[in-house]
Amino acid sequence: MKTLLGGKGANLAEMNRIGLSVPAGFTVTTETCAAFHENGGELPAGCWDEMLEGLAFVEKCMGKKLGDASDPLLLSVRSGAAVSMPGMMDTVLNLGLNDDVAEGLAAKAGEKFAYDSYRRFLDMYGDVVMGIEHHLFEHQIDSLKKEVGVAQDNELTAEHLRELVKRYKKVYEAEGKMFPQEPLEQMRLAANAVFDSWNSDRAKKYMAINQITGLKGTAVNIQAMVFGNMGETSGTGVCFTRNPSTGENLLYGEYLVNAQGEDVVAGIRTPEDILTMKTALPQAYEDLVRNTQLLEKHYKDMQDIEFTVQEGKLYMLQTRSGKRTGAGAVKIAVDLVEDGMIDRQRAVQIVEPTHVDQLLHPQFKDESAYAADVIGVGLPASPGAAVGQVVFDTETAEELNAQGKKCILVRVETSPEDVGGMNAAEGILTARGGMTSHAAVVARGWGKTCVSGCSELVVDEENRWLSLGGVKLHEGDWVSLNGTTGEVIRGQVELAPPAISGDLDKFMTWVDEFRRLKVLANADTPEDAKTARDNGAEGIGLVRTEHMFFGTGERIMAVRRMIMAADTATREAALTDLLPYQREDFEGIFRAMDGCPVTIRLLDPPLHEFLPDGDLDEIVAMLSADTGADEHEVVERIEKLAEINPMLGFRGCRLAITYPEIGRMQVRAILEAAVAVQAEGKVVIPDIMVPLVGTLEELRDQTAMIRETAKAVFEEKGAEVAYRIGTMIEIPRAALMSDQIATEAEFFSFGTNDLTQMTFGYSRDDVSKFLPTYLERGILKHDPFQVLDQAGVGQLIETSVQRGRATRPELKVGICGEHGGDPSSVDFFHRKDLDYVSCSPFRVPIARLAAAQAALNN
Amino acid sequence: MKTLLGGKGANLAEMNRIGLSVPAGFTVTTETCAAFHENGGELPAGCWDEMLEGLAFVEKCMGKKLGDASDPLLLSVRSGAAVSMPGMMDTVLNLGLNDDVAEGLAAKAGEKFAYDSYRRFLDMYGDVVMGIEHHLFEHQIDSLKKEVGVAQDNELTAEHLRELVKRYKKVYEAEGKMFPQEPLEQMRLAANAVFDSWNSDRAKKYMAINQITGLKGTAVNIQAMVFGNMGETSGTGVCFTRNPSTGENLLYGEYLVNAQGEDVVAGIRTPEDILTMKTALPQAYEDLVRNTQLLEKHYKDMQDIEFTVQEGKLYMLQTRSGKRTGAGAVKIAVDLVEDGMIDRQRAVQIVEPTHVDQLLHPQFKDESAYAADVIGVGLPASPGAAVGQVVFDTETAEELNAQGKKCILVRVETSPEDVGGMNAAEGILTARGGMTSHAAVVARGWGKTCVSGCSELVVDEENRWLSLGGVKLHEGDWVSLNGTTGEVIRGQVELAPPAISGDLDKFMTWVDEFRRLKVLANADTPEDAKTARDNGAEGIGLVRTEHMFFGTGERIMAVRRMIMAADTATREAALTDLLPYQREDFEGIFRAMDGCPVTIRLLDPPLHEFLPDGDLDEIVAMLSADTGADEHEVVERIEKLAEINPMLGFRGCRLAITYPEIGRMQVRAILEAAVAVQAEGKVVIPDIMVPLVGTLEELRDQTAMIRETAKAVFEEKGAEVAYRIGTMIEIPRAALMSDQIATEAEFFSFGTNDLTQMTFGYSRDDVSKFLPTYLERGILKHDPFQVLDQAGVGQLIETSVQRGRATRPELKVGICGEHGGDPSSVDFFHRKDLDYVSCSPFRVPIARLAAAQAALNN
Repeated sequence: MKTLLGGKGANLAEMNRIGLSVPAGFTVTTETCAAFHENGGELPAGCWDEMLEGLAFVEKCMGKKLGDASDPLLLSVRSGAAVSMPGMMDTVLNLGLNDDVAEGLAAKAGEKFAYDSYRRFLDMYGDVVMGIEHHLFEHQIDSLKKEVGVAQDNELTAEHLRELVKRYKKVYEAEGKMFPQEPLEQMRLAANAVFDSWNSDRAKKYMAINQITGLKGTAVNIQAMVFGNMGETSGTGVCFTRNPSTGENLLYGEYLVNAQGEDVVAGIRTPEDILTMKTALPQAYEDLVRNTQLLEKHYKDMQDIEFTVQEGKLYMLQTRSGKRTGAGAVKIAVDLVEDGMIDRQRAVQIVEPTHVDQLLHPQFKDESAYAADVIGVGLPASPGAAVGQVVFDTETAEELNAQGKKCILVRVETSPEDVGGMNAAEGILTARGGMTSHAAVVARGWGKTCVSGCSELVVDEENRWLSLGGVKLHEGDWVSLNGTTGEVIRGQVELAPPAISGDLDKFMTWVDEFRRLKVLANADTPEDAKTARDNGAEGIGLVRTEHMFFGTGERIMAVRRMIMAADTATREAALTDLLPYQREDFEGIFRAMDGCPVTIRLLDPPLHEFLPDGDLDEIVAMLSADTGADEHEVVERIEKLAEINPMLGFRGCRLAITYPEIGRMQVRAILEAAVAVQAEGKVVIPDIMVPLVGTLEELRDQTAMIRETAKAVFEEKGAEVAYRIGTMIEIPRAALMSDQIATEAEFFSFGTNDLTQMTFGYSRDDVSKFLPTYLERGILKHDPFQVLDQAGVGQLIETSVQRGRATRPELKVGICGEHGGDPSSVDFFHRKDLDYVSCSPFRVPIARLAAAQAALNN
Repeated sequence: MKTLLGGKGANLAEMNRIGLSVPAGFTVTTETCAAFHENGGELPAGCWDEMLEGLAFVEKCMGKKLGDASDPLLLSVRSGAAVSMPGMMDTVLNLGLNDDVAEGLAAKAGEKFAYDSYRRFLDMYGDVVMGIEHHLFEHQIDSLKKEVGVAQDNELTAEHLRELVKRYKKVYEAEGKMFPQEPLEQMRLAANAVFDSWNSDRAKKYMAINQITGLKGTAVNIQAMVFGNMGETSGTGVCFTRNPSTGENLLYGEYLVNAQGEDVVAGIRTPEDILTMKTALPQAYEDLVRNTQLLEKHYKDMQDIEFTVQEGKLYMLQTRSGKRTGAGAVKIAVDLVEDGMIDRQRAVQIVEPTHVDQLLHPQFKDESAYAADVIGVGLPASPGAAVGQVVFDTETAEELNAQGKKCILVRVETSPEDVGGMNAAEGILTARGGMTSHAAVVARGWGKTCVSGCSELVVDEENRWLSLGGVKLHEGDWVSLNGTTGEVIRGQVELAPPAISGDLDKFMTWVDEFRRLKVLANADTPEDAKTARDNGAEGIGLVRTEHMFFGTGERIMAVRRMIMAADTATREAALTDLLPYQREDFEGIFRAMDGCPVTIRLLDPPLHEFLPDGDLDEIVAMLSADTGADEHEVVERIEKLAEINPMLGFRGCRLAITYPEIGRMQVRAILEAAVAVQAEGKVVIPDIMVPLVGTLEELRDQTAMIRETAKAVFEEKGAEVAYRIGTMIEIPRAALMSDQIATEAEFFSFGTNDLTQMTFGYSRDDVSKFLPTYLERGILKHDPFQVLDQAGVGQLIETSVQRGRATRPELKVGICGEHGGDPSSVDFFHRKDLDYVSCSPFRVPIARLAAAQAALNN
């Protein structure tokens, strides 16, 4: 019932059902949150009465009453949506305290406890419900600690805490806010505040970054408080049933004695390793271990658990599937299968494509090489290696990212406000916070390197410098992070591509058992083709022949002569010079892909893309020297080639139709290479692909040219190679006319990049002028160049597949745009019955997993 | 039965049926032509036997036999498709002659006649059937005439003609061809040659140019020959039942005594005026006049007739509806109605939209007079004729115009900066840009002659010369443009003014009785609106608000400040300065369109289009002076505005969503103007149109902005005006998502220019690089920016109309692209049940006629 109760509410109910000790409580549903917002920010009719019923139930269970000064019930009020969004929404603890109740509680449970709870309540309530900034309270406690000469919060005496409560109330007054003494009013406003937090900017941004859509709202969990701050037999903690970084099957986490939950998360005191709890709180530890094992078996997945120990008794506050690193996810899945706890199908479903992505992220090339430059060590909060320029705030991080620069975000500690900067940075370094701090959890979820709790680190965010190990670094200086060891290294350490472990290999063979979609790769060189094959690609879905045109020496000279040619004869002479180079490239790719299809796209970009960059006069001089044309001719030709909208210009098959000699040279190079490699005993499967087709007549023209050239090559060589001819479907008109186009095409490959450009009328090169505004304002849910627009572009794809197959039932259909490596898009391609996706070689494993999950989920 | 028998065959049969004297014959159908080509260029089975039956029938009628030397039957073999394509396909006359038959014919009908016929046959048969070039025969007759000292062909004696036959046979030998002596073989090969001519390049080109599609092939008409060359009582001629240039109701044409038909057409001898035939061949003339009157009554249209007189007896060889000028067409239609020969409905159907177009533009007096001076051909972008002195910039154009001199503005391509010069010039010539380029669209909107995309044209704007077809022209040299053919002619060609008669006025009122589609106009100024209304527009379908941004003085300064604004406050200040100018423009338009809807599109083009053209340093200095920003800031802003593919960039509603203050100013200007003009007692119907919408969310954002602004304006003014909000459908995605978009839109207007650009992936500005090749090779049948692509773009329109109306049955749907003035596109819009078309003011009469014809034809 996660959708209705939220993850937290559903799991609390479930833990209660299987007999674990959970504080009494009730959950206000996510639907209520939706109704609250529809209702203009008011609880819908009848809701408050139901909440009072819930409260009466809790009071009955606990034998205490809210607001009863003689034996008060205190409440925790916590948010919880269907999808876990750590730190994004609000929590209020110790609700029900007021001046009278605090006095009563002091009489019953001790003055220090009572006023510690009261000051905590005033702070959280002020922050979450009344909109008073947390740092105003922090400033008061810091001043008081200085005045009375103590270092830790828990060294404050009852008297100090009474004084602190007074000062906190003055903060309310200074801010012109009324602290409601009435506990029911506190509860109502707190619930409203949790609902409001659903619409906060930071929650929206988190959902946007994590592509979380379709949720109704957050639930509100109202439970009786249990107290970890009732002295040395009490405590609170967070643990994972396995190590979320490595996957190791060992309880992993931290706890604090005499503390409330927020102390662990906020990193105010540095917590203890969970394993030491065995001696500190032996009975509670034994219960915790038993519970964790029970919960893992029950949920069949590694759990992330929150608990509190009140005077020796363990209470379970939360359980959920734990976030984990890529390495952790794969090892846990493999271990759970090998322990017989889950089957392979389930294993394939609980590892996310982003986990596999992480495993494919870089590591340092040689960890021993940088030893001398290590300036400090923090907690290894999220593995991997990251190198970037130091920045101290979200804004600068986002700016550098937009400029294509790499940066490391350095903060004393991160708050949910920082998610934008964390996303923009290569890695995160914090001075405070443990392995389960906000920074650590968020970074692990994203597979982003993070070193947290580096306590030696001094950060001056205002003046933009940090100091660590005697080294001072300013904004813009380079730093490297090793998220696996916690090391902070000055300068730029060299990165190496990721190493794929045995667990991953095993896991990927399971993945391939379930998928129906084939996964191919986009590769332009023999080296790329090899990488693709190593990553499991079953062929090449796109060879961009133009990439072969960039090169050095005679090759680039021939390209330039071809472009500058003012007549067919000159162009043909240049093409004759280019032929051997193209043939050689194709031979290398065919050899690397022995037995697999290789889909080769004929020349696509406008010719002027091959002109050198730079100052016009220099280019003209260079081209004149290279081609022998006089400078005046060169200028004239360059002007003729210039285009106002090159994306919609003289490119694709329009080139090869106008200059058939270009197409003939390329087809000749492909088929001569195919004949030669076949003669070596290899199996060559060339698929020749015509780009930018919009009409049947264009494709007819090109198929005629290809068949004619093939016939000539095969006659000359006295050998034949079977080949297919297909087309890109990347122009809206081609999608609409697919019934006709399939009469000539043996395969379709959707070029979703161009198809997205033309279907939306967005130029990828210019979209940054308005896309950020569109995403921020919710006009677009995703960048359509990253995540396929299923409603619009997807409609054209679906139409095209149906019409193409109606004409030619055996039509092979795939996709070779960026979207081939995006999991939600892969799911769409599976549902629309494509035959394959093709993506960059490094995303092949992700696409394989996404394809398997698509098959299992549909 | 035109489809099956071709126009000529059907009309011959019809003339025979109503009792006119037609030489006996039979017709091989157009379906046989299709079967012939499917059969690989062979007659289909059974066909030859049927042709022999037909021949037997003709032989029986004539009492002569083919190949009978004693009394030979000769045949004419003529092509004839369902649509008349004058001169495009082939004809063979005098078939059946060979050496023996010629001798026999000489004995029977005279030696001179027999050998004149034989030499004609050898020439035509060689040319049409054997592929021997006509000029080789011409060379022989010319030499002979010189040798024997005669000037005219008919002065050659029988002896000469015998000699000529010998020499013609030698031409066959020299070309290695065998002349078939067997008459049946001659007939078979001649029929095949006619079928082959259907696929000739010239026929294909003619069909492409004239947009003739969907024909099966040509028929072959095989008839007994009648002879106009049997002496002074014989002759041949061509006539129209009325004057095709003026429409005057008087027999019009020419004839030659003692000649065969090709002599008239080939212009070898100068023919006589048809009226003189009354004395030369009185009986035949009387019969002819009777026949022409009969045929006109029968076909209810002016006829174009071919006839031959053999020894005093008139034979009708062909009748068809005659081609005519615009003036002729309208006068003929009106006269036929007034004479009670046809009804108004028929009158509306026999005048072509291009006829009306012609009447609205000046023409050259005599298009044949300037052939030698044509120096190049571009795209016929805006019809009419223009003569003026070459200028290369707006300033000079305006200067000459002010001096009362006529000029032609020559540019590589025009930008909105050039509108002043374009307006001042008689015509515009550009090297780049298609039929719907800026220059073309603006020129057509003004009814100004334009030749665009003249790719051979080299323009040196700096040094003020152009070069074309090997001719270099300097500023001030005279040039003439034919916007109907695309010809560029050096020097001053003589003009004739457009003749708009009372007939046209009368005719247009008839037109309006039959149409269902409303016709609106695209107009940006009060002056344009007035022209539109004068031409019969029922409202404005598109006001481009950006055109109002170009102006002088404070207006352009405010525009520049708005564009250069780096922050919202500066932008708002500039917009506040612009508001009164926009309001004033709208007031003028509302006044001019009292009682009619005025559809106003919010700002559409990317902001950088408003930057001045020219040298970057100068622009920067100017903008810095105008806006007060320092030069560094100006450069930065210009760089920010630059785009790689502006067509797909930061424009349309993307602007007003990112800078809502722009949209608010425009809506305010529209509604303040509406309130003010309504207060004058006029009926104001503003339709506010959001451009470039691709998603429902974009339109939602804009409708909210519009309604909010409207509310504020109406409250301030204490008055309300009813208005509607709609959207352009010009992005493929918008068409696909029309069910959603119609939830917010009260009307759709298809922007078929942009929709065509994105559906095909063609940039209007760059398409001239490959479009000519595509049209020439038949890859495209038409320029899709002129004639709507019904299969592809039309599919999106149909989908959009259906989905939009499914959501909102009362949705108003129209089109405001260039296609609104194209007859075949208007027919499509009628069939797809649109409510209106909107086109440039000068094309309104054409659209009205096209809409009426669409209603009558469907």
